[in-house]
Amino acid sequence: MEELAQHCIDLLASRGVSIDDIADCARYLQSDYHVDLKKEELVESVLSVISKREAQFAIVTGIEMDKVAEQHKMDDKVLEAALLRDEPLFGVDEVLAYGICNLYGSIAMTNFGFIDKNKYGIIAKLNEAGKSTGVCNTFLDDIVGAIAASAASRFAHRWIKK
Amino acid sequence: MEELAQHCIDLLASRGVSIDDIADCARYLQSDYHVDLKKEELVESVLSVISKREAQFAIVTGIEMDKVAEQHKMDDKVLEAALLRDEPLFGVDEVLAYGICNLYGSIAMTNFGFIDKNKYGIIAKLNEAGKSTGVCNTFLDDIVGAIAASAASRFAHRWIKK
Amino acid sequence: MEELAQHCIDLLASRGVSIDDIADCARYLQSDYHVDLKKEELVESVLSVISKREAQFAIVTGIEMDKVAEQHKMDDKVLEAALLRDEPLFGVDEVLAYGICNLYGSIAMTNFGFIDKNKYGIIAKLNEAGKSTGVCNTFLDDIVGAIAASAASRFAHRWIKK
Amino acid sequence: MEELAQHCIDLLASRGVSIDDIADCARYLQSDYHVDLKKEELVESVLSVISKREAQFAIVTGIEMDKVAEQHKMDDKVLEAALLRDEPLFGVDEVLAYGICNLYGSIAMTNFGFIDKNKYGIIAKLNEAGKSTGVCNTFLDDIVGAIAASAASRFAHRWIKK
Repeated sequence: MEELAQHCIDLLASRGVSIDDIADCARYLQSDYHVDLKKEELVESVLSVISKREAQFAIVTGIEMDKVAEQHKMDDKVLEAALLRDEPLFGVDEVLAYGICNLYGSIAMTNFGFIDKNKYGIIAKLNEAGKSTGVCNTFLDDIVGAIAASAASRFAHRWIKK
Repeated sequence: MEELAQHCIDLLASRGVSIDDIADCARYLQSDYHVDLKKEELVESVLSVISKREAQFAIVTGIEMDKVAEQHKMDDKVLEAALLRDEPLFGVDEVLAYGICNLYGSIAMTNFGFIDKNKYGIIAKLNEAGKSTGVCNTFLDDIVGAIAASAASRFAHRWIKK
Repeated sequence: MEELAQHCIDLLASRGVSIDDIADCARYLQSDYHVDLKKEELVESVLSVISKREAQFAIVTGIEMDKVAEQHKMDDKVLEAALLRDEPLFGVDEVLAYGICNLYGSIAMTNFGFIDKNKYGIIAKLNEAGKSTGVCNTFLDDIVGAIAASAASRFAHRWIKK
Repeated sequence: MEELAQHCIDLLASRGVSIDDIADCARYLQSDYHVDLKKEELVESVLSVISKREAQFAIVTGIEMDKVAEQHKMDDKVLEAALLRDEPLFGVDEVLAYGICNLYGSIAMTNFGFIDKNKYGIIAKLNEAGKSTGVCNTFLDDIVGAIAASAASRFAHRWIKK
């Protein structure tokens, strides 16, 4: 396992997100096409997304932003407040997410839009937890959605080639 | 009304899509936030999207592709067949749609992903009709989804500023 | 060699573009970082880009549009005229190009912007030829730029990992 | 002047970037098409870009990241080190920049790619200054490039409509 990939996995775990959780979101996105799919079958695709350099830097950047906001260490209190209240027109969280999804093509993009609205599994949990005082998951829920959306797209492309 | 905008409206009408149909999709996308919203309130935003030069060229290009495929006038029979069967991994239809949505920011992008999966109203009709022999709506349903997603995003941004 | 990839290579050749020409553009994009790089070292990356399904469909769609315009077979004469004069605000040609570049991350995107302005090699030739009556390369020069930009990005990422 | 726009202008000024500097980059991008253009004619377009909500949040986020890195306040030392050395494969800086450019269409995107490689004016200065110990402009130079690229695209679209 490459070093920066492991760093991302540890970072996600420290924020309450396991590879298994993400694989389950990816499975949910593919469930219309593969009724019997198990989340275990998506794990390889999730790990492959996390092995890409641009995905890794988006993951660490998003999580760092959440943490700096939580710890009230930002110079810019306007930004800190926007992050802490998960301002709906913020948009930079989705921009980072699209930076991951774009690498996996248009299916990943539509997958993301869908799961961003139809929150599922760990994404719903993160979103809910982010409403508590002192917790900021503004970037994290979109980062997790983007990894799941990308993993599902990768799986779909590979399935067809079989 | 600027000339190319009117040309797009006529072209959409000739393919069975009215401004009203698109406004209704935009209303659907905003309905979680504005329960009582009427589609009439979205018409201005739909027309504003259609007034942008890059949106206009995406609309005419997408519709032309559908028609050339329907009329079996393509040189490239591999492409023609992919369009006629609405090949799920084609992707260029979504790429064109994102060319419109990008102009309206990240909310437009997630809106598109959602309505592309949760087909609604005229989008469901176009998708269904596209399955009949001799009809190709491969680009059109995504173009319509993109205009609606963008109009809903524009409406949301303006609402907040009120 | 997978079938659709070979189809793309043949199609590019029929429009006067060889893999070698594209590899030379990719080499040009990397030349600031690798002075002695030879185009032969970029061929594998060019072929890898052309092996991706979404890139393939963008290639065949773009080339088909150019040909339908050249043959005056379009229903929409407004679009046909815009393509034949390579209208600078058209934009759909770049949108298709970004559909390819996005798969290779942000370096591919900036590479494309650079070579789209600093036309080089086959891209300059295509652009020049497109000004003659009866020739339309409006999509093709951007498609070629996108493949080269993506191949150079892929090469850069792999180089670092060595 | 709307409050968040003024906040962005002040923030840019505090990092050594004036509206005038950005207008001059936008003028440079348009200089092939308008030889006699003066930077003063681009100021309105620069301010218009900065008046968009999604651009504003990208600006404050990027600058905050640079400052948190400079002040060594990041939890994630891997990320902090990548930002401080302006790691070429980082990519998130360009992703944020594209979040701005996308709002202004494909011309803005190619403009950005060009000025990101052909550094000019304040962008060259920021990039140079970022190499000194204790200064981090990793996000800022791309943010400035994106505002200039978008302003030039807006100007080009309006010019044609005259």
